[in-house]
Amino acid sequence: MNDPHIAKAFDRDLEAIQAQVMKMGGLVEEAIREGSKSLKSRDVELAEKVRRGDRQIDELEDLINTQCAQVLAIRQPAATDLRTVLTVMKIAGNLERIGDYAKNMAKRTEVLSQMQPVEGASSAIRRMSKEVGSMLSDALDAYVRRDAELAEDVRHRDLEVDQMYNALFREFLTFMMEDPRNITACMHLHFIAKNVERMGDHVTSIADQAVYLATGEMPDDPRPKDNKAIYRVEGFEEADE
Amino acid sequence: MNDPHIAKAFDRDLEAIQAQVMKMGGLVEEAIREGSKSLKSRDVELAEKVRRGDRQIDELEDLINTQCAQVLAIRQPAATDLRTVLTVMKIAGNLERIGDYAKNMAKRTEVLSQMQPVEGASSAIRRMSKEVGSMLSDALDAYVRRDAELAEDVRHRDLEVDQMYNALFREFLTFMMEDPRNITACMHLHFIAKNVERMGDHVTSIADQAVYLATGEMPDDPRPKDNKAIYRVEGFEEADE
Repeated sequence: MNDPHIAKAFDRDLEAIQAQVMKMGGLVEEAIREGSKSLKSRDVELAEKVRRGDRQIDELEDLINTQCAQVLAIRQPAATDLRTVLTVMKIAGNLERIGDYAKNMAKRTEVLSQMQPVEGASSAIRRMSKEVGSMLSDALDAYVRRDAELAEDVRHRDLEVDQMYNALFREFLTFMMEDPRNITACMHLHFIAKNVERMGDHVTSIADQAVYLATGEMPDDPRPKDNKAIYRVEGFEEADE
Repeated sequence: MNDPHIAKAFDRDLEAIQAQVMKMGGLVEEAIREGSKSLKSRDVELAEKVRRGDRQIDELEDLINTQCAQVLAIRQPAATDLRTVLTVMKIAGNLERIGDYAKNMAKRTEVLSQMQPVEGASSAIRRMSKEVGSMLSDALDAYVRRDAELAEDVRHRDLEVDQMYNALFREFLTFMMEDPRNITACMHLHFIAKNVERMGDHVTSIADQAVYLATGEMPDDPRPKDNKAIYRVEGFEEADE
């Protein structure tokens, strides 16, 4: 690994893979944006576009994994370089999951568009999605620039997403109790909210990897979580995933 | 890689890692079994044991990933051997997720034990969990024995789990509509059912890897899914993840 020619070749390979990761990240950000927009505006065509678009995201993950495997086989990197390649694969895996959640939001949008709207719900989900999308953008920036501070900031913003989710959970329960005709729609909305909250967890995991690449160590507190608030609030208990 | 001494060392390393994967699999099977048992019998102590036990599962995944990284660094395997190592990491990742879902079932058990029971629900979830546990056991056997036929069998059994989930989804909606006092409990039960269905998806993914290791190719049909049944059943629509 001390041969400068080999080292350079590895860096070049890694940069090419990193470009694919950023492309994948861009598509996932778009899927979140368009998924939550389609939910809000009951736009079935846009939802269908998000669903179809997930294939490209999945293909990019496959491509990244294949390229990483090739780099491992050909360059046989050691120590730090090896870890970096494994980290890239992990980030691609997180992005693929987030894309799946966005696709799922789009699927449920198509179902929900045939039901009576639940007041305020889709706006609240859209706000949550916007926050997660902006966290994702920052997490990927932190990863590319090896910026531990920005990554830590993202990790802490996930707390807010968790709190938004908890507020929505209580709201949906109230809607359902008030009027049983809201039940089916609220079940779908609740799943969407939960999936956005899970997107936030995967963004946090990307931020963890960014911290690791920048500092050589995983963050101390595995994942800041506002567990107390989650468990006992006004008689409505929600268990954190 | 043609040096028999190196090849043997790689095989030895891989066997040691595989033993850790099987240990992890055993713990995850136990977590599913005990998690669903605690739900059925409203056994908060057992649920607490499952929650605590998840740490060991997470630690095993870390250990497996570290050992895989060491094997990659030291043995620098090429082609098939490299793919095998990456597959092992993927299976460990699936097991960790299944363990998380079992932990979550245990968390919700603690919450549900304070509410009025919903008739028949926990028995139905336990049946689903049993099926998933037995699929997991077979998927791991298929992986160790490189048995593509058994792995294909597991993949198709996941359809039944999806159908069980869909039946439960409709049942919970009915319970909630009949009596609003059931709403909070049914929301938690529904999440548990959904998580068991997701466990099935991760077991299917392990079976996919087993097929790949046995045949050198991923299964043709990415994941058999009974989508039609999921989308439109008696006016209750549920979107598949």
